Amino acid sequence: MKGFVFHGTGQAAWEEVPDPDIKDPTDAIVRVDCVTICGTDLHILRGDVPETHPGTVLGHEAVGEIVETATDVHTVQPGDRVLVSCITACGRCGYCWERTYGQCRGGGGWILGHLIDGTQAEYVRVPYADLSVHALPGTVDSKDAVLLADIFPTAYEVGVLNGHVRPGDTVAVVGAGPIGLAAIATARLFAPERIVAVDLAPTRLDAAKQLGADALAEPGQAQELISDLTDGLGADVVIEAVGVPESFELCTRMVRPGGHVANMGVHGRPVTLHLEDLWSKDITLTTGLVDTYSTPTLLRMAAAGRLPTSSLVTHTFPLDQMEEAYDVFGRGADTGALKVVLGGQQHEVVAVRAA
Amino acid sequence: MKGFVFHGTGQAAWEEVPDPDIKDPTDAIVRVDCVTICGTDLHILRGDVPETHPGTVLGHEAVGEIVETATDVHTVQPGDRVLVSCITACGRCGYCWERTYGQCRGGGGWILGHLIDGTQAEYVRVPYADLSVHALPGTVDSKDAVLLADIFPTAYEVGVLNGHVRPGDTVAVVGAGPIGLAAIATARLFAPERIVAVDLAPTRLDAAKQLGADALAEPGQAQELISDLTDGLGADVVIEAVGVPESFELCTRMVRPGGHVANMGVHGRPVTLHLEDLWSKDITLTTGLVDTYSTPTLLRMAAAGRLPTSSLVTHTFPLDQMEEAYDVFGRGADTGALKVVLGGQQHEVVAVRAA
Repeated sequence: MKGFVFHGTGQAAWEEVPDPDIKDPTDAIVRVDCVTICGTDLHILRGDVPETHPGTVLGHEAVGEIVETATDVHTVQPGDRVLVSCITACGRCGYCWERTYGQCRGGGGWILGHLIDGTQAEYVRVPYADLSVHALPGTVDSKDAVLLADIFPTAYEVGVLNGHVRPGDTVAVVGAGPIGLAAIATARLFAPERIVAVDLAPTRLDAAKQLGADALAEPGQAQELISDLTDGLGADVVIEAVGVPESFELCTRMVRPGGHVANMGVHGRPVTLHLEDLWSKDITLTTGLVDTYSTPTLLRMAAAGRLPTSSLVTHTFPLDQMEEAYDVFGRGADTGALKVVLGGQQHEVVAVRAA
Repeated sequence: MKGFVFHGTGQAAWEEVPDPDIKDPTDAIVRVDCVTICGTDLHILRGDVPETHPGTVLGHEAVGEIVETATDVHTVQPGDRVLVSCITACGRCGYCWERTYGQCRGGGGWILGHLIDGTQAEYVRVPYADLSVHALPGTVDSKDAVLLADIFPTAYEVGVLNGHVRPGDTVAVVGAGPIGLAAIATARLFAPERIVAVDLAPTRLDAAKQLGADALAEPGQAQELISDLTDGLGADVVIEAVGVPESFELCTRMVRPGGHVANMGVHGRPVTLHLEDLWSKDITLTTGLVDTYSTPTLLRMAAAGRLPTSSLVTHTFPLDQMEEAYDVFGRGADTGALKVVLGGQQHEVVAVRAA
């Protein structure tokens, strides 16, 4: 088969690799129909994720069809159309028992395209298949469903639910890339008073507005805008969706006393936490890897047409144009790319929405 | 009357000051029976709290007797024995409405001995008396009750409740000064599997053991001990009770994935938050000023003999030996002082417990 193989910093290629085989009794083999590319894949390519070894097939998000199951797989069978989740769950360790599947200690967690071969290929082996793939309702298009493998549960769980967004809240989302936009879309489900999107790029602020942001700001103006909107108090919830020290510190300056800062960004460096100001301000700060406990709920909502998944997809490609897709996604600032989707039923190159 | 007046960095004296008068319809005047000294008072003396102006009477903790009430005070009357809380609550602003009295926007919050004259005096004016003093059961000794003005609700709310201590947890308390010891004592109420006390001073670790710590460690050994005790995972809850960058960073190294870090320390400098490690670890970090919503509950528990308040009191003085008491408290490392109490029914100098 073909797969997109990481060969060390800055090096990867769509090339011939061995077909995956069943290794363990809980494995399934999935024929990949549709995949997407995540910012984390770019981190690996940039050499920021040393535990990913050269030779690994990348990708942790897919929709496909079960073609083989091992002896201990009971919830899906060959022929089933499934979502392959970014999180693999053993279902038996203490962390899985408390539904924190992202922290699985039984050999799961984020392993696909990270510690083992991933989904950006024609076939993928999925360990612990019973708890790591989700059967798809026929009403959900593959190109919508694939956004529920990582980005929507991450935005919802790590941003919106960790941040405790409540009706009437002022919510600031710092970073209007795909994950920030998905946070805006899912924060709206809780009827906040307003959502303020913060980004440097006008095209991303436009997208934020389309997805439900009520106010837009560049980082330099954000704190003053939030202050004006909240009688000087600050935002109830601030969601960090960038992953650099400057954006994190902006978040901690914008939150009100008693408010929440929910970090979603993948950080490569330490940040400064101004406890000399914050020690007395009743702040709750959360970090998190997605657990995907919300995936079944989000799938039902997608089937009911209640998630604007397709609004995030700016470019589609056939599966074998992986290198072009990485190029377009990696140059998002120039190309206007938000999410790129490869595969699905139509394999022609289509720009779904001009950014 | 006499009061302990702040005169600028390093300068304070027990001296003649005007008696307090009723100023607002919600005021009460309290004759002070018993007070204590807080680490925050030392911060003011060291010049770390610039909003406290020279000329202010210090102190935010007292037990005393109501001697006068203004027209709008309805819950207490002259002759009542009361606890004067460190937090004054207007009861009407949005923060009070949500029981976050420490963040009161109506003129309350921490104001006594900070923004207005405080309790280290023979009399004190208490604004918003209805919600800022608590009538005392006769069964609670004044010298026990005064520890419920600040230290016990702070340790319980900002440490134990914010940290979500649960049965079976491994709890680490970094800093075994008075506030850390009160956190150990109140964490025990939730039946944790073990409490690990961390401090440099052997005398404080001894006190931690007496108050219920199961294991003791110096900071340099703490991380390894916690790791050994938890199969390499880390503590479920880590409570920071020092207020310096080194102790905060130790806390974030000791917490398990999915765990809580509850900051109680009063910080004067920024800290480094290692988000490059923590972004994926499902950490919840909280800060807080006490709200004192738990004070009525803690008073009932003290009346029932279920809080080891007196174990924290190492030295008592008559009220007019304020300067000596500050000296003994400020040199705690040498004197073994934990909490010092002034006043109460016996006014002789007694070392209650050798440290």
